[in-house]
Amino acid sequence: MTDRKEFRDLATPAAAHDAIDSLELTPAPESVPLTAARGRVLAERIDAGVDVPGFDRASVDGYAVRAADTFGADEADPVELSLVGAVHAGVAPKVSVEAGTCVEVSTGAVLPPGADAVVMVERTNEHLDEDGDPTRIAVRTAVAPGDRVMAAGTDIAAGARALGPGTRLTPREIGLLSALGVNEVPVRGRPTVGIVSTGDELVRPGDELDPNRGEIYDVNSTTIAAGVEAAGGEAVLYPHAGDDYDEMERLLRTAADECDLVLSSGSTSASAVDVIYRVIEARGELLLHGVAVKPGKPMLVGRIDRADGGESAYVGLPGYPVSALTIFRTFVAPAIRSAAGRAEPATATVVGEMAVRERYAEGRKRLLPVGVLDVHDESTAGAEGGRPLVYPVDKGSGATTSLVEADGVVAVDPDTEYLDAGETVTVQLFSPGVAPPTLLGAGEDDPALNRLLDELAAPRYLPVGSREGLRRLRAGVPDVAVTAGPTDRQVESVELGGWRRTWGLAVPAGNPDGITDLGDVVDDDQRLVNRPTETGLRSALDDAMADLAAERGVDRRDLTDAVDGYAMTRRGFESPVRAVCEGRADVGLALRETAERLGCDFVPLGEQSVVVRAAPDRADREAVRAVGAALSGEPFAETLASLPGYERR
Amino acid sequence: MTDRKEFRDLATPAAAHDAIDSLELTPAPESVPLTAARGRVLAERIDAGVDVPGFDRASVDGYAVRAADTFGADEADPVELSLVGAVHAGVAPKVSVEAGTCVEVSTGAVLPPGADAVVMVERTNEHLDEDGDPTRIAVRTAVAPGDRVMAAGTDIAAGARALGPGTRLTPREIGLLSALGVNEVPVRGRPTVGIVSTGDELVRPGDELDPNRGEIYDVNSTTIAAGVEAAGGEAVLYPHAGDDYDEMERLLRTAADECDLVLSSGSTSASAVDVIYRVIEARGELLLHGVAVKPGKPMLVGRIDRADGGESAYVGLPGYPVSALTIFRTFVAPAIRSAAGRAEPATATVVGEMAVRERYAEGRKRLLPVGVLDVHDESTAGAEGGRPLVYPVDKGSGATTSLVEADGVVAVDPDTEYLDAGETVTVQLFSPGVAPPTLLGAGEDDPALNRLLDELAAPRYLPVGSREGLRRLRAGVPDVAVTAGPTDRQVESVELGGWRRTWGLAVPAGNPDGITDLGDVVDDDQRLVNRPTETGLRSALDDAMADLAAERGVDRRDLTDAVDGYAMTRRGFESPVRAVCEGRADVGLALRETAERLGCDFVPLGEQSVVVRAAPDRADREAVRAVGAALSGEPFAETLASLPGYERR
Repeated sequence: MTDRKEFRDLATPAAAHDAIDSLELTPAPESVPLTAARGRVLAERIDAGVDVPGFDRASVDGYAVRAADTFGADEADPVELSLVGAVHAGVAPKVSVEAGTCVEVSTGAVLPPGADAVVMVERTNEHLDEDGDPTRIAVRTAVAPGDRVMAAGTDIAAGARALGPGTRLTPREIGLLSALGVNEVPVRGRPTVGIVSTGDELVRPGDELDPNRGEIYDVNSTTIAAGVEAAGGEAVLYPHAGDDYDEMERLLRTAADECDLVLSSGSTSASAVDVIYRVIEARGELLLHGVAVKPGKPMLVGRIDRADGGESAYVGLPGYPVSALTIFRTFVAPAIRSAAGRAEPATATVVGEMAVRERYAEGRKRLLPVGVLDVHDESTAGAEGGRPLVYPVDKGSGATTSLVEADGVVAVDPDTEYLDAGETVTVQLFSPGVAPPTLLGAGEDDPALNRLLDELAAPRYLPVGSREGLRRLRAGVPDVAVTAGPTDRQVESVELGGWRRTWGLAVPAGNPDGITDLGDVVDDDQRLVNRPTETGLRSALDDAMADLAAERGVDRRDLTDAVDGYAMTRRGFESPVRAVCEGRADVGLALRETAERLGCDFVPLGEQSVVVRAAPDRADREAVRAVGAALSGEPFAETLASLPGYERR
Repeated sequence: MTDRKEFRDLATPAAAHDAIDSLELTPAPESVPLTAARGRVLAERIDAGVDVPGFDRASVDGYAVRAADTFGADEADPVELSLVGAVHAGVAPKVSVEAGTCVEVSTGAVLPPGADAVVMVERTNEHLDEDGDPTRIAVRTAVAPGDRVMAAGTDIAAGARALGPGTRLTPREIGLLSALGVNEVPVRGRPTVGIVSTGDELVRPGDELDPNRGEIYDVNSTTIAAGVEAAGGEAVLYPHAGDDYDEMERLLRTAADECDLVLSSGSTSASAVDVIYRVIEARGELLLHGVAVKPGKPMLVGRIDRADGGESAYVGLPGYPVSALTIFRTFVAPAIRSAAGRAEPATATVVGEMAVRERYAEGRKRLLPVGVLDVHDESTAGAEGGRPLVYPVDKGSGATTSLVEADGVVAVDPDTEYLDAGETVTVQLFSPGVAPPTLLGAGEDDPALNRLLDELAAPRYLPVGSREGLRRLRAGVPDVAVTAGPTDRQVESVELGGWRRTWGLAVPAGNPDGITDLGDVVDDDQRLVNRPTETGLRSALDDAMADLAAERGVDRRDLTDAVDGYAMTRRGFESPVRAVCEGRADVGLALRETAERLGCDFVPLGEQSVVVRAAPDRADREAVRAVGAALSGEPFAETLASLPGYERR
């Protein structure tokens, strides 16, 4: 433990930007087929190589004429012209227009020689000969030279500047390139970004995980790869190096040889940093180690020389996913966009009000992840003034769920001690396309609720337990709280609806210990897995234990202390059942639904109501009314009917 | 010409939306690897299948302890614990923590049995034995159970709702799916959209074009395909049917069998519509023919039965590119997004002021293509109020350049007769990502200018000729006008700079007719190709002809009438030279630069100044100042030095 690196002299965020800006990661331009050019960026100016159209073109169906022949013609006094032929689109004219004659033309046809205008068919009449063929055309309008003709080069003339360098190619630009016949398009190259992730504990998604060895899925590789692609780069995932430092060194060198930029991440051990130091010191340069930003302190910036004499840029990202993605988004993605020739996206910011007070005093610039909730729709905007609520989502950098529970960040200065409730803050959304959820809920976790949420448009639900949900409702953050069982808190709320669920004990299939009630758990030395005290499920068990204690005339605490694992709580409603299934426990506090679905036997102990409650000042919001409608709707009735132990209230 | 279809009973735009909404084009969901899931839309709810983390995890480097052992410890009075082993990330603990002992742990390691907290290394000291190995650890702080430990399932517990159906997958959601080990992601299918384009005149970009046959490049297929992909669909381009109606019928049936939606376009002849009627009447249903919107009237909506008993949706798009893309964007793209599960993009609108009056009286809803110019930067915002200028870009539906010269559309009601200059209008940008140009210029076309524009950020330049450019500058639309030669209009402007260019006559290589001056052109029966009167090049020629007429004591008109083709003007500055190169003319009005570049000989007739002029009220805009800077900069000096016949003023 003597080699642990510390980050005492942290660089400022501005210095980190400068360090990355000094790196060269722009790839050579390339040529792509037009059909693959959407979203790419032109590497050079495109001048028109041809006239568009390439010929004088009839722009309506009608008759090509000499305009002078029509002078004076009108509805009352048409001019008659001899019809001498026809020209259709895509065919070379075989006839010309002399004085007193006309030629039938289709839209898009080449104007025949001699003609200088077209009369649209709607302003003409055909005169037929004995065989019923038209031979003469009555023209009921006068036309001027050039009428209904698109002259060659009118759209764009050969030599004209069509599109400038740096133009991002959307369907519209692709349309113009098509018209010019440009089939191979010179575009900015996409920087190749190699991603090296290390750590013996990392397993690629899809592979088998052994939690007993402390294995976790590798989040950073796929997440950062997706971020690289979104920024216009091309991601290359290198195989895991584990904590084999020779292998890691080899991979870093290979990645530098093959890529414009190398990113490493997932390395949580100090020794991995040593390897990076070693590689960079042997061939390259370290520009920066550590940046004064939270999350994301342990960031490295440098250059690695290539075997071919060139050099690759290098950025070491922190290991925690939220830190890694924050650093990537803040410092690395802009450099990739710049190298790819992409414009910075229009800043997507939301100005809102802090829903709660947030303390801070760490001396680093903080990028506080926050959720945004626009509580001011037509029902409330007048009363409250219109600013969305902003609430902190700070589960720590190690939590991957905060990736999706937040909508953006609030940048907090190093010397800011706190953000007060009601304070105006500016949220930088994670991208301009981020649409914050329409509804925020918090409270009990429940499988029927999960399905109810599927019926709503873009809800966000935080399964923090009944008590905590109610506490947050009172604090004014969520729109709705979901509680199970009796609640001891008095919180003013509007009931939107609810259901009943059967709770009890999950026991192994076949109920080998013959558990019939709670008394058996106390008396038979059963290993229990419990739920946290915030949950309604746990409250129900506590109440049942209190009843049992009263019945037996003992103190409740004596009973609970007698149960092995009563204090052993698990976060999810499936967790106790899974512990029983896997033989890690004898009984688990559970819902009938979960026990049956996961293949356990179930000993029912009671029923409890689950209630969805709205904050009184949000009850009229459209998204909240939609919850009420879904609760009383037919699809949710079918959901309840399909779940064991569930029924409507 | 007897079967021409007319569109007398046009459907309202709302009815067209309804017709398309009634079509079924939602494909079956599919499963994609996580690495290909970015941008896709979840087809179903994803519940966590595992606890994350899957074990109680040390969240810092330090020592796993029993919290009770540390009670009372502080800096002044540390507690000493025996070090009994180590657990690193990715390794199963082989040791447990008993009272009075501790185990070294790395960040991410499994908390060893018996421990309930971790002390961070920074709050400890090692005590070494005689061999220098640490045997006892002094803990300088008290910790509570759970401190620096992330309990199993804390991030997300098995069974919890992770992501809802309809979630668009960004790098953040991909991060959460990675953490859950989800490697195959159930996503909404991408509707398959077949594109059938017809017309004998259409040639695929990249193939050889024969303008004498009236051939043009097929713009719609690639443009609509790009639009389909941008909306979340998968485009399938079918080969050209030409105007072979049997082949076209076969292609439509094949496309219907293979695709969720078939789009046809590029068919400008009425007979092609007959084929579509025939196919749909034989197997399918026509829901709508013609919609009261401009551009885009001739739109078809229907269903085509499939050989397999299902049916495909069908929309017939107009042939002109701007009409086709407008109809596609307005009516078809929303249906594709809906079928793909994509949210409608946040409406990107800009409220601006009409720069000029625009008349309209056609009885159809009009989607007027417009450009947007934000003329109010820091230099002018105070004075003028801040609304961007909106100017019509109406070159007709046949012009592909209006695809890129416009930024969006203004919807004009059927009964609106005109939009007045200064009137407030709302522009629907073509997409939320559209960034209107920073600078608008108009005037002479010039190869040096084309290169100057490359140095500017996102300029838009309309090569309308010197006179027209000046007229527009006076009308208050562009920021700058570029004029060549003397100008007869008095328009107040600020000169930003300019250059000189040599003009004259392009003649075939070797100058076979021995042309030495303008007199030879008049006297030797030369066929001339001229430029339009709006251009400075033409003004120079007119002036030279006037001088020659004065010299010879004749009327200028007599001289110009004597020149074959004096009235034969071509739009682009390269066009006359190309006509000479290709033997279609004997002499062409040209710049030395163009004649030499395209391989002609050149007879100089004079020099003229090209001047870049800013509107006085825009001269302080940042983008305009950037033009002045570029004009006097070194790169542009190099450009001028590299172009034959060019020099600085």
